[in-house]
Amino acid sequence: MRLDKKHIDNHNTDQSALHNKRLRFAKDEIADADQIIEKLKAFQVAIPSWALGTGGTRFGRFPGGGEPGTIEQKLEDVGLLHALNQSSGAVSLHIPWDIPQDHQALKNLAAELGLSFDAVNSNTFQDQKDQEYSYKFGSLQNVDKQVRDQAIAHNLEVIRHGEALGSKSITVWLSDGSCFPGQINFRRAYENTLESLREIYAGLPADWKLFLEYKAFEPNFYSTTVGDWGQSYSYVNKLGEKAYTLVDLGHHLPNANIEQIVSLLLMEGKLGGFHFNDSKYGDDDLTTGSIKPYQLFLIFNELVEGMDARGMNHANDLGWMIDASHNVKDPLEDLLQSVEALMIAYAQALSVDKQALKQAQMESDVVRAQEILQHAFRTDVRALVAEARLQTGGALQPLGLFRDLQVRKQLVAERGFQQSTGL
Amino acid sequence: MRLDKKHIDNHNTDQSALHNKRLRFAKDEIADADQIIEKLKAFQVAIPSWALGTGGTRFGRFPGGGEPGTIEQKLEDVGLLHALNQSSGAVSLHIPWDIPQDHQALKNLAAELGLSFDAVNSNTFQDQKDQEYSYKFGSLQNVDKQVRDQAIAHNLEVIRHGEALGSKSITVWLSDGSCFPGQINFRRAYENTLESLREIYAGLPADWKLFLEYKAFEPNFYSTTVGDWGQSYSYVNKLGEKAYTLVDLGHHLPNANIEQIVSLLLMEGKLGGFHFNDSKYGDDDLTTGSIKPYQLFLIFNELVEGMDARGMNHANDLGWMIDASHNVKDPLEDLLQSVEALMIAYAQALSVDKQALKQAQMESDVVRAQEILQHAFRTDVRALVAEARLQTGGALQPLGLFRDLQVRKQLVAERGFQQSTGL
Amino acid sequence: MRLDKKHIDNHNTDQSALHNKRLRFAKDEIADADQIIEKLKAFQVAIPSWALGTGGTRFGRFPGGGEPGTIEQKLEDVGLLHALNQSSGAVSLHIPWDIPQDHQALKNLAAELGLSFDAVNSNTFQDQKDQEYSYKFGSLQNVDKQVRDQAIAHNLEVIRHGEALGSKSITVWLSDGSCFPGQINFRRAYENTLESLREIYAGLPADWKLFLEYKAFEPNFYSTTVGDWGQSYSYVNKLGEKAYTLVDLGHHLPNANIEQIVSLLLMEGKLGGFHFNDSKYGDDDLTTGSIKPYQLFLIFNELVEGMDARGMNHANDLGWMIDASHNVKDPLEDLLQSVEALMIAYAQALSVDKQALKQAQMESDVVRAQEILQHAFRTDVRALVAEARLQTGGALQPLGLFRDLQVRKQLVAERGFQQSTGL
Amino acid sequence: MRLDKKHIDNHNTDQSALHNKRLRFAKDEIADADQIIEKLKAFQVAIPSWALGTGGTRFGRFPGGGEPGTIEQKLEDVGLLHALNQSSGAVSLHIPWDIPQDHQALKNLAAELGLSFDAVNSNTFQDQKDQEYSYKFGSLQNVDKQVRDQAIAHNLEVIRHGEALGSKSITVWLSDGSCFPGQINFRRAYENTLESLREIYAGLPADWKLFLEYKAFEPNFYSTTVGDWGQSYSYVNKLGEKAYTLVDLGHHLPNANIEQIVSLLLMEGKLGGFHFNDSKYGDDDLTTGSIKPYQLFLIFNELVEGMDARGMNHANDLGWMIDASHNVKDPLEDLLQSVEALMIAYAQALSVDKQALKQAQMESDVVRAQEILQHAFRTDVRALVAEARLQTGGALQPLGLFRDLQVRKQLVAERGFQQSTGL
Repeated sequence: MRLDKKHIDNHNTDQSALHNKRLRFAKDEIADADQIIEKLKAFQVAIPSWALGTGGTRFGRFPGGGEPGTIEQKLEDVGLLHALNQSSGAVSLHIPWDIPQDHQALKNLAAELGLSFDAVNSNTFQDQKDQEYSYKFGSLQNVDKQVRDQAIAHNLEVIRHGEALGSKSITVWLSDGSCFPGQINFRRAYENTLESLREIYAGLPADWKLFLEYKAFEPNFYSTTVGDWGQSYSYVNKLGEKAYTLVDLGHHLPNANIEQIVSLLLMEGKLGGFHFNDSKYGDDDLTTGSIKPYQLFLIFNELVEGMDARGMNHANDLGWMIDASHNVKDPLEDLLQSVEALMIAYAQALSVDKQALKQAQMESDVVRAQEILQHAFRTDVRALVAEARLQTGGALQPLGLFRDLQVRKQLVAERGFQQSTGL
Repeated sequence: MRLDKKHIDNHNTDQSALHNKRLRFAKDEIADADQIIEKLKAFQVAIPSWALGTGGTRFGRFPGGGEPGTIEQKLEDVGLLHALNQSSGAVSLHIPWDIPQDHQALKNLAAELGLSFDAVNSNTFQDQKDQEYSYKFGSLQNVDKQVRDQAIAHNLEVIRHGEALGSKSITVWLSDGSCFPGQINFRRAYENTLESLREIYAGLPADWKLFLEYKAFEPNFYSTTVGDWGQSYSYVNKLGEKAYTLVDLGHHLPNANIEQIVSLLLMEGKLGGFHFNDSKYGDDDLTTGSIKPYQLFLIFNELVEGMDARGMNHANDLGWMIDASHNVKDPLEDLLQSVEALMIAYAQALSVDKQALKQAQMESDVVRAQEILQHAFRTDVRALVAEARLQTGGALQPLGLFRDLQVRKQLVAERGFQQSTGL
Repeated sequence: MRLDKKHIDNHNTDQSALHNKRLRFAKDEIADADQIIEKLKAFQVAIPSWALGTGGTRFGRFPGGGEPGTIEQKLEDVGLLHALNQSSGAVSLHIPWDIPQDHQALKNLAAELGLSFDAVNSNTFQDQKDQEYSYKFGSLQNVDKQVRDQAIAHNLEVIRHGEALGSKSITVWLSDGSCFPGQINFRRAYENTLESLREIYAGLPADWKLFLEYKAFEPNFYSTTVGDWGQSYSYVNKLGEKAYTLVDLGHHLPNANIEQIVSLLLMEGKLGGFHFNDSKYGDDDLTTGSIKPYQLFLIFNELVEGMDARGMNHANDLGWMIDASHNVKDPLEDLLQSVEALMIAYAQALSVDKQALKQAQMESDVVRAQEILQHAFRTDVRALVAEARLQTGGALQPLGLFRDLQVRKQLVAERGFQQSTGL
Repeated sequence: MRLDKKHIDNHNTDQSALHNKRLRFAKDEIADADQIIEKLKAFQVAIPSWALGTGGTRFGRFPGGGEPGTIEQKLEDVGLLHALNQSSGAVSLHIPWDIPQDHQALKNLAAELGLSFDAVNSNTFQDQKDQEYSYKFGSLQNVDKQVRDQAIAHNLEVIRHGEALGSKSITVWLSDGSCFPGQINFRRAYENTLESLREIYAGLPADWKLFLEYKAFEPNFYSTTVGDWGQSYSYVNKLGEKAYTLVDLGHHLPNANIEQIVSLLLMEGKLGGFHFNDSKYGDDDLTTGSIKPYQLFLIFNELVEGMDARGMNHANDLGWMIDASHNVKDPLEDLLQSVEALMIAYAQALSVDKQALKQAQMESDVVRAQEILQHAFRTDVRALVAEARLQTGGALQPLGLFRDLQVRKQLVAERGFQQSTGL
């Protein structure tokens, strides 16, 4: 289904008096509000195709209805989100869960929906039917060269799909590692992985980036071969200038200071992008901003500061993506909440008084530095975010409208109770 | 398949010279070795039916072959283990993964294999086909009385199956909880759960126990309604004298001192039993003793001390069970390793010089207390464990014999590549 | 020094136009704003005497100047805070760091400053000069009855001091525990501690409460004898109706769900009070609300809901106290930031639409429940907090005025560079 | 005091029959036992001067008696340890806690005691009396160039002391970091630290190494500027070939896989050395091997494998040092226990069947790989460790002899109750 633009217009008209009042107040409170709105308008978060269905855990899965069953339906779902918030204008495909047959048709459909294709994702953490070699003991790290070659070939194939669709990057997340002491030789696993990555890197088009994602644990529970930012950094340094580290917020040991990692990777010129989500215990893949919103703000604070310091373009020079699982929520509603939380954190970070903060830091005035950050975080920036949507044709209250229009009910009517592929 | 006893005899004969040499040395080194051997002979660890197949994570699953497809085959697998180590003489069924049809026939088969039926396990963390209400938002905690009633009825049915098989306890593990702040009211969830548990408790036969297992997180990632030992303890205290807390080693927050929890629950008379496994990060369900063997020893040290202080029977007064997942290993081999690790830890704990330890404690001689425990742990007790097996008709080296006899190959030949039900 | 009221009046006059504008907007946005303001006016957070000086770690200490050297000066410091924010109207003394000589004179001074005496605190985690027995191996848990008796006598003496000052509660925090496996017998340590607590409890005046604080680790690094809420709960249940659990936000294992603990303790009628602070790694004792403000809000959300459910008086029925260490900040500035963060979290919690939340929960509408909580948290409530201060005679911007008046400079001039006693 | 060699001889004579019996058994059980003994004989662990006195926490300190008050007495204490175990033949000094006055006299004393000077340690985490600038807000990271210069000068002075004593390395541990979000700019802190380190590195003698130690948290509780191995690695890579990462076992986030870090740093040629201790929660600084002995073994397993792969000399090519705090034990007894635990772990690692392990890994035979490691760990190697001591003139049971000779009593008689300087 597609959203009739007049629904959005009616919704916005109904809300406009209240919105305008809030916007006026926010503009009085926040310096440079108009510039912030401009940046918000340009900011787009890619939606991964696997996040459009209900997720699950190893214990169970409770699917909802109306989930997309084809790539086309997945694009339509992202199109719905984008129509509502005008900030979800890209989709990130996952091979082999989404194997494009007619790339041009898909590109046409995406264009029609205002979408582009963000990073493509390979999968060597599951075995596919009719696959020759198993990834039970790893893929790019595997002691068996034939397994590694199969995984390399898969990544190269993913790149070819991406090229045909206009993607400019591939995200490589490896579950490679071990479950027990002694299972692998760490050095050999590293060296095999590096050698394999070099072959994939060699197949990268000239204007592409390779994002190497790290993760502390799960599904391997003793070691992971790209286990932390330091390991990812050491690989991408060796691979070359098109290789970057990708940060997934849920992929760290307890209590890690992620914002510091972000700052340092930016400093080193090796931050490639993000997988946004939130978590309390592990890779919980909860809705972005639902558990630790201040941490999310602090991360954006580093992003804004660090990108500005390098003269980077906020909208284009990093890959922004959501990677969450929706076990107890409607996936589309969850994604609307996630994007809203990201826009709020970004707006708050943009509103930080950077000169004052720098001065406080140079004077080691800790109390003042905290006040500056807390002021930005405590200020209600939602009117700016809504205004950015309004100016780009989105809805003032995307989630409210989604519910008012009973979108899910329509999708169920259209598609039935089919379940989507993915985690 | 069944194991021909003569294979075991031949194996033991081949190993006997070496074994006897080691046993003599161990007896010289360890006081009261013969008494320890007697206790080891009496010690039995229940094997859960779901641990007989290859496990997996939400990311993937790599099944092996020859897995049991029926309850009968599962009993046969446990029978194989028990034939080899004479310490796995009980099986713990899981409903609805194992719904007995002919209880008497199963009892006969078990008796033939030397097995008894340990705690039965209910499952309200997954929806079963044709189930009327969904557990998506919890079972015993659910805001909907109809859901709770369905879950209560399921538990009562599980008890009936258990009764028919000769079980004497039910283990209730609830995944109930929430994924997001606000999703549930903690107090209401507690009260609903308590009320539901009271109904199940009311249906408990007079000579049964109810074990209430706690877990910090997963599959719910914000809160769990029976989330730690304190919560389980507060429920079982209210339920009555037949209700006990069950400790699963992987169900704690990072760095928890599990041995202290064990000691205090024993003191309160509320420790019911164990789910053994090991972990590095979360509920990793790795082979018992594979990551933190000293912790396992310290837990057994508290068990022995605390049970002796209450005059409890080591073999019968607590429920001993393995609960692990075998993602990269042959399940039967993994279980043999697990039981071996348990027997070693138990033997080490039995060998602790309790009088000397008490004296060191009463003198606050920390160095001496550490020496006493480390001495017990550093001493090689494997010959005692092997001797206990020998005396009860098991194999000196169960895993070695399992491989020598190519048991898995035979199982694959017999059963093909079918996959078992479970996690 | 004391604050001249006219400074506050001038400050408020200067800020009044901007404040009134913000207040009007906030009242438009927040239902029942006036009732919230009334509750904020009644809310008082006790300041512990040891938080008035610069803290430190085992690695070092970098004291500032003008720290209070006597109880009288400590009262004066709290008086300064209270004059500024009208929410710090109580002080919590620590024996033996503050041994009152003339109780009546102290009471007069407190009354003059508008302060009352909150819980008194005992200290059996350090040895004092001329103390007969050492607490090196614990106090109430100690294997030596003489050590226990000394610690009991100390607690009883602390109660007598508190009585003379008008306190109504004692907080017992024990560092008792062990650093190494084997050092103590957990059960004996529990039993000794319980027996000792019973003696202290027996000496409690009829209208007093005993708060038993728990802590996961530090300064003992293997076990703590009152180590988690479950242990504290099991002690206070045995002690009697005047015994309660005290929650310190920094005393948990990583990732603990503190808000759930709060809710359950309230349900059980066993929550006594709070030590507020914030932390990222352990008992970091950072400024309240500086690291995880959303968690602080969620805790207050449970407090408001749970206290209302039991008909409790928010202002009086629990003990509210800060317990933080100020290693890199001016202690008074840090405390102003802490109280501000508490008032904000409390105001946000009060503003939650409880009916709507309950309805969402009863419908398992997870998305809506999250929206309700996030809306309350994202709304800027600072104008309500400031208005509460204004109406009770405090300053609109306490920290701003503290700096404008150069209070610290005056304290240094008055007192010099002396260092306060405490952690 | 010095130990009379005849005490050791008598002790060894008394124990020899039992020892020989155990040794014979161990040699039968362990392949290449004699080669292992040779390696154990060569292995020396440096004792840090600050570990010779009773440590403490921010909460308190319970000093014992007879602690060394001068560098000479500290050398004597290490001399006692070395006489007993012949494996503690080096001392690591800490400036300014130990400022040598007469370097030649110290060298003579050390030579007399059979000791050499291992890495020297600088201290910029505390302010010393009469120090011009404070390190309250960091040292090498400080925003104030004057503070940085002072810290650089201190490090260069430490190097000069080390040169005069024959040390060949300096360990730089920085507590630099921040306690609150916003306090520092991470990038600026990194850049200042790097620039400062370059100046220290420039002052390094040609045959020296610089060890850069990382730590996740404490005493700064929001961020640490050399916070994990990845950060240390990125600094030492930029500094040059004489700069290496130093791993302290207690300086990681919860659940970190330290053995993997060790393997990768060895692979990169950037592992410099170790600070050994053990911990359950944070930087607990407990006795090495007292909490997680299997982890210690796994670390040594990687060390042996990785050093052999690079042709490194086990005894000389890495810096081995203990860094622990003895809050409830006699420091010398604690150090004897620590060295014993290290020797055991090293012996176990040496006894691993490396060919079989490699084969199991190449076949992804996880069960077999685990069996191989567990077999090495479960085998009692203490007789080999004792034999290595015997052959080098040490005592079969160092701790037993220490107690039999009442060494502490003699030290107290000699020195009284003075307290040592340090943590």
